[in-house]
Amino acid sequence: MIDTLEYTNKHELVFLDQTLLPLKEKYVSVKDYKDVIDAIISLKIRGAPLIGIAAAYGVVMGVHCFKSENRKNFEIHFYKIIESFRHSRPTARNLFYALDRMLKVFEENRDKEFEQIEELLLREADAIYDEDAEMCNRIGVNGAELIGEKMNILTHCNTGELATGGIGTALGIIATAKKQGKDLFVYVDETRPLMQGARLTTFELDKLDIEYDLIIDSMAANLMKEAQVDCVIVGADRIASNGDVVNKVGSYSLAVNCAYHKIPFYVAAPGSTIDFEIEFGDEIKIEERDSTEVTRIKGERITDDDVPVMNPAFDLVPANLVTAIITEYKVHYPPYNFGGLKHMFSSYIQALRKDESEVEE
Amino acid sequence: MIDTLEYTNKHELVFLDQTLLPLKEKYVSVKDYKDVIDAIISLKIRGAPLIGIAAAYGVVMGVHCFKSENRKNFEIHFYKIIESFRHSRPTARNLFYALDRMLKVFEENRDKEFEQIEELLLREADAIYDEDAEMCNRIGVNGAELIGEKMNILTHCNTGELATGGIGTALGIIATAKKQGKDLFVYVDETRPLMQGARLTTFELDKLDIEYDLIIDSMAANLMKEAQVDCVIVGADRIASNGDVVNKVGSYSLAVNCAYHKIPFYVAAPGSTIDFEIEFGDEIKIEERDSTEVTRIKGERITDDDVPVMNPAFDLVPANLVTAIITEYKVHYPPYNFGGLKHMFSSYIQALRKDESEVEE
Repeated sequence: MIDTLEYTNKHELVFLDQTLLPLKEKYVSVKDYKDVIDAIISLKIRGAPLIGIAAAYGVVMGVHCFKSENRKNFEIHFYKIIESFRHSRPTARNLFYALDRMLKVFEENRDKEFEQIEELLLREADAIYDEDAEMCNRIGVNGAELIGEKMNILTHCNTGELATGGIGTALGIIATAKKQGKDLFVYVDETRPLMQGARLTTFELDKLDIEYDLIIDSMAANLMKEAQVDCVIVGADRIASNGDVVNKVGSYSLAVNCAYHKIPFYVAAPGSTIDFEIEFGDEIKIEERDSTEVTRIKGERITDDDVPVMNPAFDLVPANLVTAIITEYKVHYPPYNFGGLKHMFSSYIQALRKDESEVEE
Repeated sequence: MIDTLEYTNKHELVFLDQTLLPLKEKYVSVKDYKDVIDAIISLKIRGAPLIGIAAAYGVVMGVHCFKSENRKNFEIHFYKIIESFRHSRPTARNLFYALDRMLKVFEENRDKEFEQIEELLLREADAIYDEDAEMCNRIGVNGAELIGEKMNILTHCNTGELATGGIGTALGIIATAKKQGKDLFVYVDETRPLMQGARLTTFELDKLDIEYDLIIDSMAANLMKEAQVDCVIVGADRIASNGDVVNKVGSYSLAVNCAYHKIPFYVAAPGSTIDFEIEFGDEIKIEERDSTEVTRIKGERITDDDVPVMNPAFDLVPANLVTAIITEYKVHYPPYNFGGLKHMFSSYIQALRKDESEVEE
């Protein structure tokens, strides 16, 4: 097991700096919630579910550091923390899901002692973490049903222990199928520009003792042509109600190539990734990141820094190219409507919205 | 104009080290033909047509450095040089085309004085260089007919002045259309692993004063989905008689995405790229290169060096995905048979083979 992130009883968040992996396993310890935001923006902490967990602890840290006895200021401080985290990364749904849960706990307990509020928020953050680990296990079991006894699986980006509070989503399925004794070989897309596949997924597969080959992203199609790929499994950063999936840039090209080569394209993600307020994927904001992610690698210049660059972090895979979506509940097939899941989440969100509107009055 | 390569009257090959571009414009000067082979293997000299030109001059250099008067040894030395170049890079057709021409000149003049033979070989190498420049111009004019008044063009790898003896193939078409006053915007695939797009094509487009955006390879599909790409033009390293194209790895994924999005996929290459002895593309040997091209960038480690990697330099685009092939003769459409071109080249190659078999007897 990899110790990706831990909130200590010294009120510190200790996490593995994922930008340095796999060459350095360096742990960073921070006390200030703003350092958690910086770590999320700079991708020291990354992976949609893990971002949610880190943000939840970050909120606790922000509350812990509040030193005055003034309740009005305390409330203002709290909302400011929530807002700061909301603006850290705009695409991953799990971040907003976690923040909404923290907000709900705060608003249901706003009249309690500050220390008691902090304790309840910590309990909620722990719950988000624990639930994510449990969701990963269930996604793993549900998804492993789709994996044959002997399979070559291609995956993109990193979706394992480093990206979640548990065994992972797409990579969690691979880990679960391996544990069940299945004979697996994984093709790992390096995942430009930030190389999460080359750096993080290879690191995790080594620990899982699963055989793999690292490839450049544009080679995946070629392997499909040569019948080397039985299925593709990726994670998701946000899923629209109709099943449109936003995930790491490069996912769309894989999905098109899967359709062309008649290979299943699976998406694995917890229910908290589904945004029921958004009907179609094109309503989702895609984060554009700094051009130096493309023009430099590890600080080393590849080309001139003033070269014009397009660098979106994610792309959109339309539902019609997604063979199945695997959540902790079950394997969903098109047409996607997420049945009871939608109802469950909707009532939860409605309750939340009601609370929020009361606050504004 | 970029001075990519020159054979001087001091019997030196002076060339721009393309591995250092665009950050350093460093010229290297070599006298030994083995240094030319090293430069080809290490990609200091690259691009299928330019490799052919460099090899032709390399043969001249090898002959120039022969110091004995023994004719038998001279002949053995000559064949050894030819063989060494043949093994430098296995895929690019133009290399073999250039070496076959040098061989023919040698065998037609084998009884002449050594100095005279060297002079005739130099004349042939100059001819290969000049003809390549002329072929580029014609490819440019032929291809520009396919380019509308205002177009967004996506290209992969580098196919311009740095890759050829003239204005280039795919990039030569773009340069020609721009000269004709057309309003062009280019999307440049960075082209992992060696970044020829990011390093070389951006460098050339800057000099041509053509607007562009640099993108990671896996984003191309996304731009196609958003109707940002009017056509894709790439070069070729070898083309089979049936029109199957071998080109820089990533070309196949682009071709599949073009088919899916109903966007033309054009290939530009001189006739010397077509291998009439090969019927189908899958007979073409694809060069597998060192894994450190993927695990390191500019010597800097991305991941551990012992990570297993698949790193083919090229991939195969089946003829059915190629909208048109542009040579110096015309725009060829499927089904590809290369008509008179095939006849012309066949008789040339037959004559050559006849000469070679005579030598063996």
